[in-house]
Amino acid sequence: MLARLEKHLADLSIRGLELADPARLTEAARALMTTDREQPTVFDEERLAAIVDLYIRTGIQVHSPGYMGRQFSGVVPLSGVIDFVSSVVNQPSSFYEAGQLPNVAERIMADELNRFIGWDQDRFAMVTTSGGSLANLTALLAARNRAFPGYWSQGHSALAAQVRPAVAVGADVHYSVARAAGVMGIGEDRIVRLPLDGRRRIDADRARQALDAAAAQGLTVFCLVASAGTTPVGAFDPLDRLAVIARERGLWFHVDGAHGASLLVSDRLRHKLRGIAEADSLTWDAHKMMFVPAPCTLLFYRDRESGRGAFRQTASYVFDERQDIYTALDNGDKNFECTKRPMIMPLWALWAMYGKSLFAEKIEYLCRLTQEAHAILEGEPDFEVLHRPEANILCFRYRPEGVEVDDLHPFQVDLRNRVKSRGNFFISKVDVDGVAALRVVMMNHHITSGHFQMLLDEIRKAGQSQ
Amino acid sequence: MLARLEKHLADLSIRGLELADPARLTEAARALMTTDREQPTVFDEERLAAIVDLYIRTGIQVHSPGYMGRQFSGVVPLSGVIDFVSSVVNQPSSFYEAGQLPNVAERIMADELNRFIGWDQDRFAMVTTSGGSLANLTALLAARNRAFPGYWSQGHSALAAQVRPAVAVGADVHYSVARAAGVMGIGEDRIVRLPLDGRRRIDADRARQALDAAAAQGLTVFCLVASAGTTPVGAFDPLDRLAVIARERGLWFHVDGAHGASLLVSDRLRHKLRGIAEADSLTWDAHKMMFVPAPCTLLFYRDRESGRGAFRQTASYVFDERQDIYTALDNGDKNFECTKRPMIMPLWALWAMYGKSLFAEKIEYLCRLTQEAHAILEGEPDFEVLHRPEANILCFRYRPEGVEVDDLHPFQVDLRNRVKSRGNFFISKVDVDGVAALRVVMMNHHITSGHFQMLLDEIRKAGQSQ
Repeated sequence: MLARLEKHLADLSIRGLELADPARLTEAARALMTTDREQPTVFDEERLAAIVDLYIRTGIQVHSPGYMGRQFSGVVPLSGVIDFVSSVVNQPSSFYEAGQLPNVAERIMADELNRFIGWDQDRFAMVTTSGGSLANLTALLAARNRAFPGYWSQGHSALAAQVRPAVAVGADVHYSVARAAGVMGIGEDRIVRLPLDGRRRIDADRARQALDAAAAQGLTVFCLVASAGTTPVGAFDPLDRLAVIARERGLWFHVDGAHGASLLVSDRLRHKLRGIAEADSLTWDAHKMMFVPAPCTLLFYRDRESGRGAFRQTASYVFDERQDIYTALDNGDKNFECTKRPMIMPLWALWAMYGKSLFAEKIEYLCRLTQEAHAILEGEPDFEVLHRPEANILCFRYRPEGVEVDDLHPFQVDLRNRVKSRGNFFISKVDVDGVAALRVVMMNHHITSGHFQMLLDEIRKAGQSQ
Repeated sequence: MLARLEKHLADLSIRGLELADPARLTEAARALMTTDREQPTVFDEERLAAIVDLYIRTGIQVHSPGYMGRQFSGVVPLSGVIDFVSSVVNQPSSFYEAGQLPNVAERIMADELNRFIGWDQDRFAMVTTSGGSLANLTALLAARNRAFPGYWSQGHSALAAQVRPAVAVGADVHYSVARAAGVMGIGEDRIVRLPLDGRRRIDADRARQALDAAAAQGLTVFCLVASAGTTPVGAFDPLDRLAVIARERGLWFHVDGAHGASLLVSDRLRHKLRGIAEADSLTWDAHKMMFVPAPCTLLFYRDRESGRGAFRQTASYVFDERQDIYTALDNGDKNFECTKRPMIMPLWALWAMYGKSLFAEKIEYLCRLTQEAHAILEGEPDFEVLHRPEANILCFRYRPEGVEVDDLHPFQVDLRNRVKSRGNFFISKVDVDGVAALRVVMMNHHITSGHFQMLLDEIRKAGQSQ
């Protein structure tokens, strides 16, 4: 078993994805299952080996240089070892008495990472939660409950007639934010989309007008959500300027840094999040650019008390009937989950073993690699460069002579599928200004600019065979 | 590392929990961390070993017969091995192309388990989600969106004036259901608590009156939530009778079987959930009585189309712009998470290796053990038995002569803390009818009735030293 994983990790060949017909894969999986009639008495090692082989073979190959597709990272293998321990000792992390070290490790990592955010260490707070979508929902709930007292208990009856709560976001915000509005009873249509500038960041100059227009339409915007690393192109909204707007209008300022917050640990890249100290809350997925298994999401609040309002009527201490030094670390009242995986442990263990340098160096390498890829693209006249990358995401189009403007969208979609089905590279596609583009996300330090050159050749071949 | 885990698993000594002062544990954890100034170049095996030791030692000891405390299970170790693979290959399971085997395994497990639910196999659906709380929220969203078209998009503006949506639950329902009402904008106060019978199950006879009273107060109940295995005492609401009430009033009927749905796999115990086929949705935590690492929650819908409405305006196929045989298995639109751990894999692997018998036998043993514990208690005059256990949860009070009625509550609370601090047994406490009781949950097949006898002696000793 371990030998199989080692072999898998050591295999640096370039490979994409073998997409199997679900019906045939189901047959293969079913064939590995014991039947009710068999009474398995001995441990069938071969069966287990076959299951593990099938599992490894049929997934995205996050450790291969051919994988440039999405934001799932090639994890640091040690974090898998810690996860193995977590799964066997099975300590949940919502309550101190059930999982002492995970709770302590959360506090330690909160302090370690807040050094880069810069909040008052006696006032800020951090909770872990199962994914960025849940972190965004949680922050928006805290914002909603602060803006509309009584909403938690009474629902919309607590609102004055005709109040229509709304959330302002950048046009490229992650879909989980609009979804959160639907979940929360705000309504998905109550999302106010702020215009973007030429680099696909929220245009701070035009944001005020857009907010005024929303108010004129009868919407009560209570929260402004900025992105630090948008999903489509990895753009960083101007946090410092947006913070000023949020403060002058009394809005909760939430930053979705699911992808890009990790840049904070790099002395060279931290400036991308200038202004983060002015935010009210921050979503940070360690399972993206901190290279630990998913999910490991950290939700930071500048002010602990505001954060406590996400799941209760008032942000008071009433909830903790008999608080002591142990229950003070409980977080079951501060995050959505009741039973929660001790997701901090792989992150803390890596940090304990290697310090921040492991993370900073990987992140800097990947961002530099993406810059190099961009430079290569600029020298290739048959490719269209769509933006200067700010992080490790790069979008572009293949546009050889003869492809008409009207065909551009289906051409890119087909290209992506052809590249995928050739099986050497796994890339994704995204719509930029309504037209499909090819997208690479560099999540694996085994990738070099040479591999990117090979990808371009692969794309050309795929394009010619269309 | 592996040797350490093996030793831990082989240690069947009776032990509870060593509760450490968080400040001292923080110091111990900090001492294991490399500092920024050190440049770790070689892999420090001793440091890792110390981290793993500290982790194992400070958690609840779910594999010891001294652990009878909560619903966290002593996992089948093989499931930890599969989790290790999951963490290293890092395939998310929201989209088929990223994690093919997890998606197929979800379909297979859905079919396998639906054999015991009994729904139409061409109409039912199952999604995995990160914990029972999220499953309950998801089901309630599907219910809300079906009952109030437009709510997803428009929020409360879609409601006719004065409509106050409400959810009916049993008085012992899990807190996540009331929390879901707060999250969804329904309002936590819009929970209608139905009265319980002498066995702490929803009293179906009085439920109708309670629903009528809620309607008379201007509430529009749209969903009825029953529990299959309540958290406090493990009671099973009468699903068959409640289903009739839900159907006659047009209510969505959700069953929170987080704890007790696993009894479905046992031929002897399945009858506890009689009527489950009439439910609209079912929450099932495999990380409880199916003995896999948390979280592994399965949310079942009787009707696939209704389930599709949880996170969208209409339950149409519009979402899937270009559906093919691959994207047909995607579930990113059907569950809350975007990136989701392939949590089905340990469950499917165990099922593939051992078939249902592994689960059925463990569950039957634990329920029988709890019956035995109950019989023992009935023979002990200084103990008060609070209910006949229906599953593997048993609540009781220690009531030696001389403890006044008014002191009963603090006496049990202190007892529980004393037992805990003696370090041999870990049990929990719960309020029953407003008075604290001791609670054991049998989650580990290494526990015998002899261990329960030892626990009673331990409780007596703890009581005498008060």
